[in-house]
Amino acid sequence: MLTDLYQLTMGAVYHEQGKDDTATFDLFIRKLPKDWGYFIANGIEDAIDYLTTLKFEEDDIEYLRGQGFKESYLESLRSFRFEGEAYAVKEGTPIFANEPIMRITAKRTQAQLVETALLNMINYQTMIASKASRVVEAARGAKIADFGLRRAQEEDAAMKGSRACYLAGVGATSNVKAGKEYGIPITGTQAHSLVMSFPTELEAFRAYADTFPQGGVLLIDTYDTVKGARNAAKVGKELEAKGGKLGGVRLDSGELLSLSKKVRQVLDEQGLDYVKILASNDLNEYSIEELLDRGAPIDGFGVGTEMITAKPVAAIPGVYKLVEDEAGPKIKLSPGKRSLPGKKQVFRQADDQGVYTHDIIATEGEEVEGTPLLELAVKDGERARQKPTLQETRRYCLEEVAKIPKRFRQVKAPNGYKVELTEKLEEKIKELTRAYRDE
Amino acid sequence: MLTDLYQLTMGAVYHEQGKDDTATFDLFIRKLPKDWGYFIANGIEDAIDYLTTLKFEEDDIEYLRGQGFKESYLESLRSFRFEGEAYAVKEGTPIFANEPIMRITAKRTQAQLVETALLNMINYQTMIASKASRVVEAARGAKIADFGLRRAQEEDAAMKGSRACYLAGVGATSNVKAGKEYGIPITGTQAHSLVMSFPTELEAFRAYADTFPQGGVLLIDTYDTVKGARNAAKVGKELEAKGGKLGGVRLDSGELLSLSKKVRQVLDEQGLDYVKILASNDLNEYSIEELLDRGAPIDGFGVGTEMITAKPVAAIPGVYKLVEDEAGPKIKLSPGKRSLPGKKQVFRQADDQGVYTHDIIATEGEEVEGTPLLELAVKDGERARQKPTLQETRRYCLEEVAKIPKRFRQVKAPNGYKVELTEKLEEKIKELTRAYRDE
Repeated sequence: MLTDLYQLTMGAVYHEQGKDDTATFDLFIRKLPKDWGYFIANGIEDAIDYLTTLKFEEDDIEYLRGQGFKESYLESLRSFRFEGEAYAVKEGTPIFANEPIMRITAKRTQAQLVETALLNMINYQTMIASKASRVVEAARGAKIADFGLRRAQEEDAAMKGSRACYLAGVGATSNVKAGKEYGIPITGTQAHSLVMSFPTELEAFRAYADTFPQGGVLLIDTYDTVKGARNAAKVGKELEAKGGKLGGVRLDSGELLSLSKKVRQVLDEQGLDYVKILASNDLNEYSIEELLDRGAPIDGFGVGTEMITAKPVAAIPGVYKLVEDEAGPKIKLSPGKRSLPGKKQVFRQADDQGVYTHDIIATEGEEVEGTPLLELAVKDGERARQKPTLQETRRYCLEEVAKIPKRFRQVKAPNGYKVELTEKLEEKIKELTRAYRDE
Repeated sequence: MLTDLYQLTMGAVYHEQGKDDTATFDLFIRKLPKDWGYFIANGIEDAIDYLTTLKFEEDDIEYLRGQGFKESYLESLRSFRFEGEAYAVKEGTPIFANEPIMRITAKRTQAQLVETALLNMINYQTMIASKASRVVEAARGAKIADFGLRRAQEEDAAMKGSRACYLAGVGATSNVKAGKEYGIPITGTQAHSLVMSFPTELEAFRAYADTFPQGGVLLIDTYDTVKGARNAAKVGKELEAKGGKLGGVRLDSGELLSLSKKVRQVLDEQGLDYVKILASNDLNEYSIEELLDRGAPIDGFGVGTEMITAKPVAAIPGVYKLVEDEAGPKIKLSPGKRSLPGKKQVFRQADDQGVYTHDIIATEGEEVEGTPLLELAVKDGERARQKPTLQETRRYCLEEVAKIPKRFRQVKAPNGYKVELTEKLEEKIKELTRAYRDE
């Protein structure tokens, strides 16, 4: 039922017209957002689960009856299952604009109905994995933590978003539920409210260090960051004397570049060079890169709002388009919305060092060099490949991203990695365009 | 468990220090996004449900044990409930920056723990209701439909987002599940794929009109919008002859201003002046206003991505701050992050015509004219006011928005509606600031 009404009205038309031939749809993303050099395909496993379990409940049918659908169509929904096939890239694969991420072939009513839910899952999860990968690249090895839960667009976004961040290389999340559900390392220490809950900052720090004597992190900017660093240093020395060890300090406001330098100095003067400096406060890949470029001695970044919502991008133009049915390949000609006709495969090319050079989109069955990215994922409505663990997907993703040429992994990536079409595919496009124009 | 880890580490500190006095936190939004004149408070009822049902399951405790929390704290979580009180504005109330939307008073561990989940719900739902209200205002009575499902940030965002849109005056949604769950009218007709599934556009239109002879809407831009309008007109006339009636045509690409005028002409020439023109394609409040300003004959707009994600805003700065505990009122002084100390109430002032003029934030107990906005919502951990129906909330929201001065309801609203502090509150701020600076 998580679908657009028009999927059902169209289904009713196909049902009534007896037009339930086999059709193929491609799911792809039309365009990379400004400065983005690649996407990380994600949400694929959820999509496979959805395809293989989808059905209508009796109360769904009842609701649709109230919306005026005819009995014969409602009857068909009662036994509705997805019985077709799906090809998909592996979750965690870097992909580019207009490359099919998933290709669905099924009876038209089945292939059409799944559009909305597939887009909902894949659009968001792909966007966040891609955004997180940008943040990780910008941090050049400094640890990134996902602090996005409170600004995520509701619970599912928080959960799937934390997972997407981890998949793309983020080290930990503040989201306890995501930690529990997905086995992601969790991180977090204190808010300003803790500091304000004690008569003085020093007392708050001492209380915290008492409960967490090993590796605790103190938030030092509630009143005055440099004074806060001195209080933290005092507590750090007290911990040393008692056999404990302060883990770090966190800055959450103000000018992070100059403050982090001052704080580093305060800590180092006390011999606390092992105490890490962590920073948060509306960070993104641009600000992290700038801080590191300018020599900010920051060891880790907590990234919230912008990573979990991909603000200002907020949505990527993933679409799902009919590319073939029993009457042959199809093309859409609406301005700015062209689709590539027919069943296709994407081949990835690498140089001698294993660095990816370009991709080639070919019509199904063409012999092309390179690694084919689309693999059989669902056959006859059943899962056709094993679900990898999140750890496996993360490892795969990080390996694959490392093979993308460096320039496309910059914070301001050029446009764009080369994606070619084979001659045969180009020819098919021309032919179909001519045919429609002449109609 | 949908919480940041630091809520639990702080809880552990309070538990160990025996520091579980009563504390009050305010939930408020720091700033209106550019051009926004107001917010619509939303997510309040979900927040109340959360507060009154929150608990930890055994497997949650087990997970936290693995994270190194001590047994005595874990034991306290086993019986953890929210037992405090919450004041909140009514769902659907227009609110402004820095006004408390919700005020929680409870034992410190309880009041602190709920922060993240409350923010997650209220931030998103408030943002979308506010964005949708802007779109509705821009449309000046033209119908708005929510087409956002496929671009929503996962399922919860789609569901709560559709609800938020409807609450704020949007007329219908394409999201069938939201229709079923919330009783929102659903809308939708066909995608380009339907048109492409038939040998010609005309055949596709005829098939659709066959199944939906009353009020169907035809998508006319798959190949060429003006040709599409002619085909639609032909089918509209055929329907007339058979006693049916074409409802409308939809444009989903290209230059909507000139196309809508041409399409109106094609339809009117055939006497089909009753056939409505609907438009979609990356619309927002700005483009809708511009289209209407320039006389586009469009009767309804389908708004997707930007309404369901509030792109480019994507997140609003809703925060949750300690304002008082048993040691007295609290203030936070971090740059750009000031909070208003102590328990407070917001009073709304109206002129003779019932138009709102300004709000006054007062310390609790002060006598101020106007309507107090914060009402008791949870008492001793139990719901203290009835949950309104969505229809009631929608009606209330529309009535209240209509009382905001027109200039703050413009697409480019000035900054901003006046929110004053009472002298007593100003004095309290000065006093606390001095005290902390002198520390």
